Amino acid sequence: MLPENSNNIKILAFDIFGTVVDWHGSIVKEIDSLNLEVSSDEFALAWRGGYQPAMQRVRSGELGWTLIDDLHRMILDEILQKFGIETLSEAQKRHLNKAWHRLEPWPDAVEGLGRLKSAYTICTLSNGNIGLLTDMAKNAGLPWDCILSAEVFRKYKPDPDTYLGVAKVFDLAPEDVMLVAAHHSDLAAARECGLKTAYIERPTEYGADQIKDVSPNSANTLHARDIVVLASMLDC
Amino acid sequence: MLPENSNNIKILAFDIFGTVVDWHGSIVKEIDSLNLEVSSDEFALAWRGGYQPAMQRVRSGELGWTLIDDLHRMILDEILQKFGIETLSEAQKRHLNKAWHRLEPWPDAVEGLGRLKSAYTICTLSNGNIGLLTDMAKNAGLPWDCILSAEVFRKYKPDPDTYLGVAKVFDLAPEDVMLVAAHHSDLAAARECGLKTAYIERPTEYGADQIKDVSPNSANTLHARDIVVLASMLDC
Repeated sequence: MLPENSNNIKILAFDIFGTVVDWHGSIVKEIDSLNLEVSSDEFALAWRGGYQPAMQRVRSGELGWTLIDDLHRMILDEILQKFGIETLSEAQKRHLNKAWHRLEPWPDAVEGLGRLKSAYTICTLSNGNIGLLTDMAKNAGLPWDCILSAEVFRKYKPDPDTYLGVAKVFDLAPEDVMLVAAHHSDLAAARECGLKTAYIERPTEYGADQIKDVSPNSANTLHARDIVVLASMLDC
Repeated sequence: MLPENSNNIKILAFDIFGTVVDWHGSIVKEIDSLNLEVSSDEFALAWRGGYQPAMQRVRSGELGWTLIDDLHRMILDEILQKFGIETLSEAQKRHLNKAWHRLEPWPDAVEGLGRLKSAYTICTLSNGNIGLLTDMAKNAGLPWDCILSAEVFRKYKPDPDTYLGVAKVFDLAPEDVMLVAAHHSDLAAARECGLKTAYIERPTEYGADQIKDVSPNSANTLHARDIVVLASMLDC
């Protein structure tokens, strides 16, 4: 099943939020556990909805370099106000903000990554900060060889310096690296830089009430239902 | 056995060359395998001997930011000339330079790190570059939670930004981090930044012909014969 042009891949770099872990389901659970008078689905979507605009403020230079933990907290403070929640203490807010460190993996992630690790170097390539990704890996049992983050390159995806940065870290050509992600825009930006790409279907990324179109794009090197299937496609 | 002031440690950051892996023994083996007409002991010591002066050229600003892989290659080219070795092809030189990616762990390292990982977040804090440390971990079976490197902070140890950088990555106070190293100078610089410190005895770091003084320094939080003993001291 392995296309001939995938033979030289050395590094598999994974997008994380939505691709490896279920941010929507995990944040919903965290909100539910707080017994707030809000729709946990709407709260999760609003928190994630603030993510791209917050990074855009960094990309545009309006904000200096700011870690995702801090952007998540800025968005959280805004949506707590928007949802009229005034009962949380500072300690509770800090704990809730670290919910992103405790996101749970999709059911196929740990097995799939373990199999891929036997034949490839597997790393993260996430806009999440290093501390967040390390805590998440330890909590969820994600067996990364290396944690790479926008924090290492001081640029947020889809800046080319992030995708090309992975190749540079490992002293490889861009085509020796494959980005694995559940988002076509991320993959398109990686392709522009010469990386190979694999799309992972996550139809419930935004919850069961908002099914995502997971149609293939033939520009990707591979298209897999999940990470276990990707492992089989890559002969692991 | 755990001193009371070690109770809050969250992160164990490890120096690598000499502390976790046996650079002298590994480089000697690589040189021996090439059947060159040189003393492999002297060659290994000369290669390592160029390391601090090369980093000093970066620290002083004489050289711009340069990865250890590239510094290792600059030193290699110099000592090949010094030792009168003219028989290596470019491919052989490139392979030999990556010997630092293949350094073998001290016999206690894999077991000790595995035990420590059960209770702490364990990471590297090495002047080695990320690609080197990742290849080494995969080759030697070192189970890091996270690979931190001078490359992340763009400063070489003993710059305070490296030690404080570890605390910052994990959003912790310096005293929540312990540096583990076989070199008193590295530990002293970490202590200056408020980190806790553990010394590991590696009497044969420079080979069996040049035994290193491994006397304790009472300024360190802990002093352990090896990493397995450190794990026991930290109740792992």
